Amino acid sequence: MAIARRLLAETLGSLFLSGVVIGSGILAVDLAAGNDAVALIGNTAATGAILWVLVATLGPVSGAHFNPAVTLAFALRREISPVMSLAYIAMQVAGCIAGAWLAHAMFELPLIQIATTDRSGPAKILAEGVATFALVFAIFGAIRHAPKAVPAAVALVITAGYWWTASTSFANPAITVARALSDTFAGVRPADIPGFFLGQFLGAALATGVCAVLFPANKT
Amino acid sequence: MAIARRLLAETLGSLFLSGVVIGSGILAVDLAAGNDAVALIGNTAATGAILWVLVATLGPVSGAHFNPAVTLAFALRREISPVMSLAYIAMQVAGCIAGAWLAHAMFELPLIQIATTDRSGPAKILAEGVATFALVFAIFGAIRHAPKAVPAAVALVITAGYWWTASTSFANPAITVARALSDTFAGVRPADIPGFFLGQFLGAALATGVCAVLFPANKT
Amino acid sequence: MAIARRLLAETLGSLFLSGVVIGSGILAVDLAAGNDAVALIGNTAATGAILWVLVATLGPVSGAHFNPAVTLAFALRREISPVMSLAYIAMQVAGCIAGAWLAHAMFELPLIQIATTDRSGPAKILAEGVATFALVFAIFGAIRHAPKAVPAAVALVITAGYWWTASTSFANPAITVARALSDTFAGVRPADIPGFFLGQFLGAALATGVCAVLFPANKT
Amino acid sequence: MAIARRLLAETLGSLFLSGVVIGSGILAVDLAAGNDAVALIGNTAATGAILWVLVATLGPVSGAHFNPAVTLAFALRREISPVMSLAYIAMQVAGCIAGAWLAHAMFELPLIQIATTDRSGPAKILAEGVATFALVFAIFGAIRHAPKAVPAAVALVITAGYWWTASTSFANPAITVARALSDTFAGVRPADIPGFFLGQFLGAALATGVCAVLFPANKT
Repeated sequence: MAIARRLLAETLGSLFLSGVVIGSGILAVDLAAGNDAVALIGNTAATGAILWVLVATLGPVSGAHFNPAVTLAFALRREISPVMSLAYIAMQVAGCIAGAWLAHAMFELPLIQIATTDRSGPAKILAEGVATFALVFAIFGAIRHAPKAVPAAVALVITAGYWWTASTSFANPAITVARALSDTFAGVRPADIPGFFLGQFLGAALATGVCAVLFPANKT
Repeated sequence: MAIARRLLAETLGSLFLSGVVIGSGILAVDLAAGNDAVALIGNTAATGAILWVLVATLGPVSGAHFNPAVTLAFALRREISPVMSLAYIAMQVAGCIAGAWLAHAMFELPLIQIATTDRSGPAKILAEGVATFALVFAIFGAIRHAPKAVPAAVALVITAGYWWTASTSFANPAITVARALSDTFAGVRPADIPGFFLGQFLGAALATGVCAVLFPANKT
Repeated sequence: MAIARRLLAETLGSLFLSGVVIGSGILAVDLAAGNDAVALIGNTAATGAILWVLVATLGPVSGAHFNPAVTLAFALRREISPVMSLAYIAMQVAGCIAGAWLAHAMFELPLIQIATTDRSGPAKILAEGVATFALVFAIFGAIRHAPKAVPAAVALVITAGYWWTASTSFANPAITVARALSDTFAGVRPADIPGFFLGQFLGAALATGVCAVLFPANKT
Repeated sequence: MAIARRLLAETLGSLFLSGVVIGSGILAVDLAAGNDAVALIGNTAATGAILWVLVATLGPVSGAHFNPAVTLAFALRREISPVMSLAYIAMQVAGCIAGAWLAHAMFELPLIQIATTDRSGPAKILAEGVATFALVFAIFGAIRHAPKAVPAAVALVITAGYWWTASTSFANPAITVARALSDTFAGVRPADIPGFFLGQFLGAALATGVCAVLFPANKT
């Protein structure tokens, strides 16, 4: 029962997260009269807000990963087993895809889409690496030094990431898959997925190592 | 006396909430030079901000429902009696209508209006169901795992809801009635009310069931 | 020494508050290319942010009133003496005027100005009454039920107030005087001051009475 | 080992801070269709958000200065040794420069740039003095009266500073150097650096003195 509850939490949280990322992008562009920075403000506010809610409510249930790169980081620290990691990742991808479809349904768009937004090139891969590094850094730093504020740390590092990384900080392989299935503001071409995955997993692994030095378990 | 205080809290909180939702919509559209996303940013900031204030100050008095769908959810959990629920709902509707009129008075608009904004169709009903599900999920999740942060959970889930649901997340039957009485940015045609109610009460009921599984009272 | 420190805190806090309200209005209009809602977003963010900082840091020193209407409310509750109230109000007005001049100096504008923005009429007076009522309600509600969150309550009720009240929620007689001395975005004609004062003091007094009922000192 | 960890924290934090300030400025201007206030909203949100994250996670490691003016203020209070102060400042400058280059790399801009944005004149020097005064005031006030909320105090005083000071509140000599190496939204001409330094160090020193009076260590 406890395992089922954890997997339900990962699925539902991933669904909400993906639905908000994609849905708020659709509405924001619809309303923003061509000013993409205005659209990104709305997209950022919605994403940061729902991340706080999801981590605060589901963190004590499943850890509130919603993100295969974060699950990898916890696995590298041996805080989640390999088998459970795979189960988490499967639910994260399924939840994120369902979230994309839910957003499409609410906005009366075709459910099944393939994104065409070009986000290719080494600079974008670097950006995803930086964004995922920052996310994992914020998570482990907050767990170590401000454990009650992990929801705020996650929400705010992604708020910043939407603006300072050239890729608008997907920082999440499951969201990347979902966004490849949405030809909207938040979309990304399937051809760009491998580079995004590369940056995301490398960024997460590097951050896990740096955090082991910066935030050792015994008090400094 | 305690009961009178609870009903006063629900009435005053509903009045403030409705006044802010409608009043900030009026000012935002007046100033936004035709960019509806800019207007929605102001509308969102005002709504999220007042929700935090109202839940933090009135939560310990009445529970800070301000929302018949939320009262229904608490009634399904047998945490409020049927009679008190009906009294709450009556005060919520009265307070929300008074809030609409207060907003109209401050902006020198006719007090009595009927909205003409078309928000019809099954996608909008789905959106209201999703928005109310998310609101009730955030409330019960925060009560279970972050009880001091319920004001933030409510404020932030509605902040996200304004952007990711195609209906801009009324998520509240009493506010829906008040918005039907305001032919402004926040308005909704009376003809669309039944569908909104359907989505809102179904979303609240479904979330109550899911939360019973996800957030059981005994520690997981 | 303790009294001098309290008066210094009121003066410095009022200076910062007024400087931020007026300075951010100047910059926002300069940059906003004619979209007043965009300007108000910047003005709101700056005001809410500095209010949080000032109440969190100076609250334990002086109570962080920065506002004659708030001082009146505390005096009605006999929590500050009449003599100290007058000293507070004098420092609040002096600090707010100095803040206006500091903002003018930073933006290379004439220090001495008289505002010409018309904010007259009963609807504006009503709006100031509502805004000040909401401010005092948030303060006494948070003191009673969320004492560590008073800074957030003040910042957020003013954030909402900037948008939902037709007067953009001055809610503060000392700030009103300072804004009459600044012919910029935040300005108000001297001729409109008496109506603003009327609304502000009535709103504060009424809220003090309602809060005595809603938030009695003994637990409900 | 503890010293190395502190210096690593200052370097990494300064890198992140500078990368976010400059990177978010680049993206914001790219997207804002000529509305600089919209760009500044995105720039502000990203800067405030990352400051919260960095101070919450690295504060317990190094104190989270990321700023020579802040290090000076702590040195004046004899809370950091002169030798360690110099090591901090060297890492802050190196980290901020690296952050500028990281931002340039992510956005496919030339790494090495010299800014051309004119921010000269006594009013800008005054503005930097005011901004740095406010920053140091917020830090020492929060340390004294709200120690768990130092991250919020820093994030919010800079959020306000971006809007109310005519210089957009660099308030940090290391960031000033980095911004002189970025000919983008956040840039500042090298010729204007001496005046900025003057304002920043004077503002920090003055605030340290005022805080010694306002926030004495023994309870008032």
